[in-house]
Amino acid sequence: MIASPLLRELIEALRCLPGVGPRSAQRIAFHLLERDREGGRHLADRLAAAMDGIGRCRLCRTFSEADTCELCASSSRDRSLLCVVETPADIVAVEDSTSYGGLYFVLMGHLSPLDGIGPAELGLDELDRRLGEGEVAEVILATNPTVEGEATAQYISERARAHGLRVTRIAHGVPLGGELEYVDGGTLAHAFAGRRDV
Amino acid sequence: MIASPLLRELIEALRCLPGVGPRSAQRIAFHLLERDREGGRHLADRLAAAMDGIGRCRLCRTFSEADTCELCASSSRDRSLLCVVETPADIVAVEDSTSYGGLYFVLMGHLSPLDGIGPAELGLDELDRRLGEGEVAEVILATNPTVEGEATAQYISERARAHGLRVTRIAHGVPLGGELEYVDGGTLAHAFAGRRDV
Repeated sequence: MIASPLLRELIEALRCLPGVGPRSAQRIAFHLLERDREGGRHLADRLAAAMDGIGRCRLCRTFSEADTCELCASSSRDRSLLCVVETPADIVAVEDSTSYGGLYFVLMGHLSPLDGIGPAELGLDELDRRLGEGEVAEVILATNPTVEGEATAQYISERARAHGLRVTRIAHGVPLGGELEYVDGGTLAHAFAGRRDV
Repeated sequence: MIASPLLRELIEALRCLPGVGPRSAQRIAFHLLERDREGGRHLADRLAAAMDGIGRCRLCRTFSEADTCELCASSSRDRSLLCVVETPADIVAVEDSTSYGGLYFVLMGHLSPLDGIGPAELGLDELDRRLGEGEVAEVILATNPTVEGEATAQYISERARAHGLRVTRIAHGVPLGGELEYVDGGTLAHAFAGRRDV
C-alpha cells in the first residue's frame, strides 16, 4: 500500500526502464525521494530533453539532435571508410575497442521481411546514393553475426559492389580468451574456414 | 564515443538510479530512444512531479503530496494501534504481508548519534505529542532487528511507556523456510529466548 498517488504513478512510470519490475521500481522511487531528489529532478529534465530533442543524423542515421552528428561532422575521420552497423550502440562498441577512424552508417535494425523491414526502412537508398558520390572507397560490413545480420550484410555487399567499391566483412572466429571446447560449432567452422597463414 | 551531447547528458543523468553504472545507463538510454520514447516522456513528467510534489504526511511522516496521507486519512483503520517503522518501504512490506489494520509512524531512519541523527530528527517529539493525545492504546515497534534498530526501539519504548501505553516489539526468530543449520547465531539465540508454549 503506497499512500501517495504521485508516488504510485512514479513507480508505474519507472516500469518503462528495461529490466525494472514492480519491486525495483519501488526501490528506485524510494531511493530518489529519500536520498537524491536533485538527481531525480536532473534526470527528469535531461530525459524530457533527450526524448523530444534527439532525432537522426542526416548522414549516418545515428541518434543526434544536430542535423549532422559529431562523428560525421568531424574533420579528423577518414571519409573513405564507411562501417555499416545495426545500431548506435554498435558504434560505441567499435569506437571503444578498435582504432577504426572512418565513418559509420547505422541501419537501425536488419532485414526482416516478416516484420515489414526491407531495404527502404534500413535507409539503403540513402546508402546507395552516398556510395555513388565517390568519397567512400571501402565499405566494412559490421552487422551482427546472426542469420539476419549475415543476410543483411550479403544484401548490402551486392549493392555496394555494383558501385565498384571494396567491400569487407569483419572477421568471425574464436573469441579471445575463449576455449575451443566451449565454442559453438558454427563459430568454430567459421574460424577454420577463415584461417590465415602465419 | 556518443556523437550527441543530449544523449551523453541523459546517460550521465541516469547514473543517479541505484545500481546503474555506465553500461546500464547506456543500455537504458538506447532502449528508450529506440523503442519507448512515449514511456520515457511519461517517466520524465511523473519523475519531475514526484520530486517536486511529494512531501511528508503531517501525521505519520511517510511520503505524501497531501497534508495527510491516504492511510492516516482512512476511516477504516484502527486508530488505537500505532506501528513505528524506519522507512516508508517498511509500511509497504507490512501492508503487503500482514493483516495489520492500524496506523503507522515513520522515523525515516534510526538513532545514530555519530551521524547527527537524534530523537528530534526522527520526529520523536511529534510522536510523544501524539501518544499523549489518548487515541493510541498500543505502540508496535517494528524497527529493523539491527543494533541501531534495537536501540531505537528501546529508546521509543521508554518514552511510550511514560504515557502508560502498551508497548510491543515484533517477534524475532527463525524465518519461515529457514533451516536451523544456516540461521545466524544471534537469530537462533533470539528464537530460543523468545520460545512459547504450544
